Amino acid sequence: MKKYGEMTLKELRQEEEALMISYEACQAKELSLNMARGRPSSVQLDFSNGLLETVTKRSGYHSESGLDCRNYGGAYGIPEAQKTLAAIMDCNPEHVIVYGNSSLNLMFDLISHAFTHGINGNTPWAKLDEVKFLCPVPGYDRHFAVTEYFGIKMINIPMDENGPDMDMVEQYVNNDPSVKGMWCVPKFENPEGICYSDEVIRRMARLNRAADDFRIFYDNAYAVHYLYEDDQPRILNLIDECVKAGHPDIYFEFCSTSKITYAGGGISGMTASENNLSEVRNLINVSTIGYDKVNMLRNARFLKEGEAIPEVMMKHAEILRPKFEMVLDMLNEEITPREIGKWTSPKGGYFISFHAINGCAREIVRLAKEAGVVLTPAGAPFPYGKDPDDSVIRIAPSLPPLSELKDAMEIFIICVRLASVRKLMETASSKSQKATD
Amino acid sequence: MKKYGEMTLKELRQEEEALMISYEACQAKELSLNMARGRPSSVQLDFSNGLLETVTKRSGYHSESGLDCRNYGGAYGIPEAQKTLAAIMDCNPEHVIVYGNSSLNLMFDLISHAFTHGINGNTPWAKLDEVKFLCPVPGYDRHFAVTEYFGIKMINIPMDENGPDMDMVEQYVNNDPSVKGMWCVPKFENPEGICYSDEVIRRMARLNRAADDFRIFYDNAYAVHYLYEDDQPRILNLIDECVKAGHPDIYFEFCSTSKITYAGGGISGMTASENNLSEVRNLINVSTIGYDKVNMLRNARFLKEGEAIPEVMMKHAEILRPKFEMVLDMLNEEITPREIGKWTSPKGGYFISFHAINGCAREIVRLAKEAGVVLTPAGAPFPYGKDPDDSVIRIAPSLPPLSELKDAMEIFIICVRLASVRKLMETASSKSQKATD
Repeated sequence: MKKYGEMTLKELRQEEEALMISYEACQAKELSLNMARGRPSSVQLDFSNGLLETVTKRSGYHSESGLDCRNYGGAYGIPEAQKTLAAIMDCNPEHVIVYGNSSLNLMFDLISHAFTHGINGNTPWAKLDEVKFLCPVPGYDRHFAVTEYFGIKMINIPMDENGPDMDMVEQYVNNDPSVKGMWCVPKFENPEGICYSDEVIRRMARLNRAADDFRIFYDNAYAVHYLYEDDQPRILNLIDECVKAGHPDIYFEFCSTSKITYAGGGISGMTASENNLSEVRNLINVSTIGYDKVNMLRNARFLKEGEAIPEVMMKHAEILRPKFEMVLDMLNEEITPREIGKWTSPKGGYFISFHAINGCAREIVRLAKEAGVVLTPAGAPFPYGKDPDDSVIRIAPSLPPLSELKDAMEIFIICVRLASVRKLMETASSKSQKATD
Repeated sequence: MKKYGEMTLKELRQEEEALMISYEACQAKELSLNMARGRPSSVQLDFSNGLLETVTKRSGYHSESGLDCRNYGGAYGIPEAQKTLAAIMDCNPEHVIVYGNSSLNLMFDLISHAFTHGINGNTPWAKLDEVKFLCPVPGYDRHFAVTEYFGIKMINIPMDENGPDMDMVEQYVNNDPSVKGMWCVPKFENPEGICYSDEVIRRMARLNRAADDFRIFYDNAYAVHYLYEDDQPRILNLIDECVKAGHPDIYFEFCSTSKITYAGGGISGMTASENNLSEVRNLINVSTIGYDKVNMLRNARFLKEGEAIPEVMMKHAEILRPKFEMVLDMLNEEITPREIGKWTSPKGGYFISFHAINGCAREIVRLAKEAGVVLTPAGAPFPYGKDPDDSVIRIAPSLPPLSELKDAMEIFIICVRLASVRKLMETASSKSQKATD
């Protein structure tokens, strides 16, 4: 196989012709495949069927606190659910507030609260001329949608294999008081799958923030979502580092049991300093009658207050691992020798991040769609949906069964090749144009 | 029995002495009883135990829309849950958005949204100098807590047996553009238990609001919560009246299955015009990954998409009715002849509203607490917790078993008598003081 970059214009043309035949053959199949969102497959969801049998007449409806979970009361969560989420976040259960089924909803509510009421006595953000958030990129599109919704100015922070560029983060946070937050997915980051290095986490904890109400929005969504039993990367505990650094209030940490039990049907929650938690409790006292405690009890019992999580996650891994490995194998085989893309090889999480030749991502997604494969929109992992290089495509291999995933990846690879060939032809012909001018 | 108002000062003193003996006897029992909140009793919660068996491996996890409820997707609710809530609100299921477990949370979110983003393109309320809400009183303390939290100025609107004073409502809404909302519990109102008359509902629909973003927050929390099978008051359908009046956007209607199935563990939702709903959908798209569809499926199946609601509610009524009737009988027997209070006799809902002699409510609640009976704080049914007459006490008879309720009511009645006697002695002695001056 020849590298595309070394092909002559003629060879590129021939390659394009050959690819078009394959592409049209794919189109003729009229497939309808989806690699767009990080949804678990139904096989994975079946692992949690026992969940529904954990709260029954026989097993009882009462929390260990004595509360009847079918009734009002206990607005901050029941103890066994606190323990379950504490096991995920590696923190003190008493420092956990259990929320509803969506940690994203909790993040949204905190930002909304900051706008209307301010954080810990600071000026409500709605009264400020400008609010900025740092956004490590590529990142999670739904985070960026929340900040965009509130008119927060988002600043791209490049990432490498260690996490966000901390020089840049320090530059902003330590000097600009309008920088109020930073999105983070510290472990198996969405979509790169990287884990923040110890150095990065230490520097985050030590940030000498210009704004007292600057918060790290630390979304530990994939804290226990390993692909390999014998290769489980650990990250430094941010909480401990923040306490050591004398900045206990600088973070909000979030997690959920989505993709441990049911996706969107689990429980979510947060940990933070007592200062921060008491503020959230005040919000909860007014904003809701309390969250669904029956579902808290169900998740806590099914996950044995956290003890069963490693076992459950290895069941998920057995389903996910072959999918990830197949995607990576196919990319290695078809893309590596042609030098038309790079990607990450995560050890956990839900995504593989594909970096195409600059200027090709939108075209690849378009081509794939027209051949029946839905991908996450190009640009989605960037604030405002704008990938400055038009290069990154998030691959979500979890939902389709292995055979469908293979079909989808074959089409994806043809689309990558086709878009790359065309981009290179464009470049080559504009060069030859220039040469003849 | 003599009317307290006709007793001489000496008789009042004798009455007080006798009551103190009874009161101290109550205290000696060291009881711990609660008539504070509208919680269903555990017997009622047991009616919904079948709820947890409606979604199982055998019955399946898929909505009739084909969606796997254990996975992400379907952010606005599944069709069977829409139908269930539509049956409660008597509206088109397609005009229903299903939310999480708390309708209060939905109301909070809409007000928060109005503050940060404005409603239907109007100025965000955070940018206005003043926002006012009309608050029919006595009303629901948690409503008032939400408006107070946002710094909204609350205006008391007196109510009679037909609902709020509509002359006053029209005066405000039609002339003051800073009046942005009005709280309503139209049926079995909390705490009076009254149902709005047709005339009141028609006049609400016809309000010529000065502010385009004025909304009626129509909390139909007790829409189906009847106490008597053969005496079920109906109220006019606000939705139809608003359409007829050419004001389709003037309301948000809310309901939930709390107190139909599990309290705080059911599902909630809203209906509104398409204009209003599309705004809420935009909010949901950003603010959450979606609400818990497994619980939607569970509630919808258990309630047979609404068809089983009348039967379920009659089971609740069988438990609640004797409690309401006992409270009313005891009040009739002990309070009526002495003329030291008035109260409502609701045909549904969760509360009886007791109106003591002016200036006695706080003292009654204090006395009761010190004798082991927790009541809703006096003042709670009013904005800012301020009952201008210090008269109203909300009685919540649902939670305690009948025997405990009887004990609690005996103590309550002693406290009412004691506080009334003292108030009348105070008045009498200040009168005689004046006479001798």
